[in-house]
Amino acid sequence: MQQTRLDTARIRAARRVIDPVFLDTALYRCEALEPHLGCAVSIKLETANPVRSFKGRGTEVVAGRLAQDGPRAVVCASAGNLGQALAWSGRGRGLDVTVVASRFATRAKLDRIRALGAGLELVDGDHELARERAAAIARHEGIRLVEDSLDIETCEGAATIGLELAATAPSFDAVLIALGGGALATGVGHVMKALAPGVEVICVQPAGAPALTRSWHRRRVVTTAATDTIADGVAGRYPIPAVLADLLVVADDAVLVEEASIVAGMRLLFEQAGLVVEPSAALGVAAILEDRDRFAGRHVATLVCGANVDMDAYRRWIGAPLHPS
Amino acid sequence: MQQTRLDTARIRAARRVIDPVFLDTALYRCEALEPHLGCAVSIKLETANPVRSFKGRGTEVVAGRLAQDGPRAVVCASAGNLGQALAWSGRGRGLDVTVVASRFATRAKLDRIRALGAGLELVDGDHELARERAAAIARHEGIRLVEDSLDIETCEGAATIGLELAATAPSFDAVLIALGGGALATGVGHVMKALAPGVEVICVQPAGAPALTRSWHRRRVVTTAATDTIADGVAGRYPIPAVLADLLVVADDAVLVEEASIVAGMRLLFEQAGLVVEPSAALGVAAILEDRDRFAGRHVATLVCGANVDMDAYRRWIGAPLHPS
Repeated sequence: MQQTRLDTARIRAARRVIDPVFLDTALYRCEALEPHLGCAVSIKLETANPVRSFKGRGTEVVAGRLAQDGPRAVVCASAGNLGQALAWSGRGRGLDVTVVASRFATRAKLDRIRALGAGLELVDGDHELARERAAAIARHEGIRLVEDSLDIETCEGAATIGLELAATAPSFDAVLIALGGGALATGVGHVMKALAPGVEVICVQPAGAPALTRSWHRRRVVTTAATDTIADGVAGRYPIPAVLADLLVVADDAVLVEEASIVAGMRLLFEQAGLVVEPSAALGVAAILEDRDRFAGRHVATLVCGANVDMDAYRRWIGAPLHPS
Repeated sequence: MQQTRLDTARIRAARRVIDPVFLDTALYRCEALEPHLGCAVSIKLETANPVRSFKGRGTEVVAGRLAQDGPRAVVCASAGNLGQALAWSGRGRGLDVTVVASRFATRAKLDRIRALGAGLELVDGDHELARERAAAIARHEGIRLVEDSLDIETCEGAATIGLELAATAPSFDAVLIALGGGALATGVGHVMKALAPGVEVICVQPAGAPALTRSWHRRRVVTTAATDTIADGVAGRYPIPAVLADLLVVADDAVLVEEASIVAGMRLLFEQAGLVVEPSAALGVAAILEDRDRFAGRHVATLVCGANVDMDAYRRWIGAPLHPS
């Protein structure tokens, strides 16, 4: 396989610095979903941990290395899950953590970041403005900037999910991965291509936040002027060139899904699987709903990557009518 | 410690015949719950598996041993979770599984038992009538009767949860266990007393189905004429003497909780932990809600033992107002 910034031996080493509470997460067939989706479905559940998302895997690697020999203060921009995870990982190691987020971010995520003892600065704009502000703070204060998907530790941490998936392949023949900044997709994708190359790696992004997917299809960075999606965890506009380069190596496809399908996916996961998930975590199911023929009769694994939602919004989503498809 | 029917070496051996999909389940601090409960809370999550309850641990032991040298046909009475699990474990080993259940059982559970290919017979009465009918079928057809909590395999399977808990103790100082037939409480309780004797073992039962709890307090079997609880998974009336004898050895306390507290517990787990649980799985949280002083400042582990609910009822429960306490 072509080179990426990732290395399987380093990913195995990363596993050893991650708190076991984030590792060896449940992976199981969910037959109750299957009549609704027309294919065999396995769930990889990344929400049953102290921060309710997969991001702890990456922040454990970041914080673990910093605690050994780096600066004691870090800042990151976050839509909410990275910030929560960095706050958790930093707290356990005595790091001083600052999180910059959009003031439009999911309130439950911001509340948890504060509760975990991190400093929280809100910007009056979207996630891309938060990224700029975090970089400015890092420069000004001379502290470590943690950049999701660009910093290799965030990709290596996410990639440890791939090690766990590859250990059970070829029991499934495609994996559906939410595509945001790209750490999850490039990390898991790298491992699948290295250790289970027969498994199709499919990235899923909302049609309302399509920058990285469009970039993948055009093989060059494409930015967008705005995003419009409930999937706050994956709503970026400025893809990182190095991440796109890796994604071009490891992804077999990148697809866009409609908002109605994301809501239908959340509702199916609630009703048939008993899982509370945030919109980003329903992208895989949404992709199946939108292209049943593609997946018919196959065995698909989908990563349930986060469960941090505002409950008022969530109650509306699961009360909404099912997608008509 | 005084003898029980259980043996720690046999429990370790049982672990080796259980499909890994049921083992090493998530155990994590859930800080978002803690301001609401006034104590540190760890969740042991037994619902992220193909049957959405802990019962697969026990049925794997039953079916694994039967597949080696036993009869190829089995029957059990079930409120729904044991039947689902036995159907799953039996299907994988080519066993012929019959489940007898009350026609008032949770519909979602009955549907899953059918979907898993088991024969399902409904009785026009409660779980105790289903137990009688299952025993009659076993006698008449000469097939194996699986009796939850009485059959040592069901206790040994459940007890493997205790091995996982004991591996992290003394990080918590009490464990709250739903009390139904008693397999979960005697199994986990046995291991805690053997390997982590400093951890308080507290059983929790609904006030509307108090037979085994009353029996524990009076140190003799007490039956009740009826049950009245939404916690269908623990609604027995006729405690098994051998199980009570074990429970008297391993439980430090057995408490009863009101229906309103069970609903409040389900709602807290939904809103603060993002977990869909069935009523039985909220008994631990209900016990904390009813006796905050007892748990204040302590670290409590609670077993989230099942997530099979009728969604219409569940939507009502999580929409209900919080318990006023």
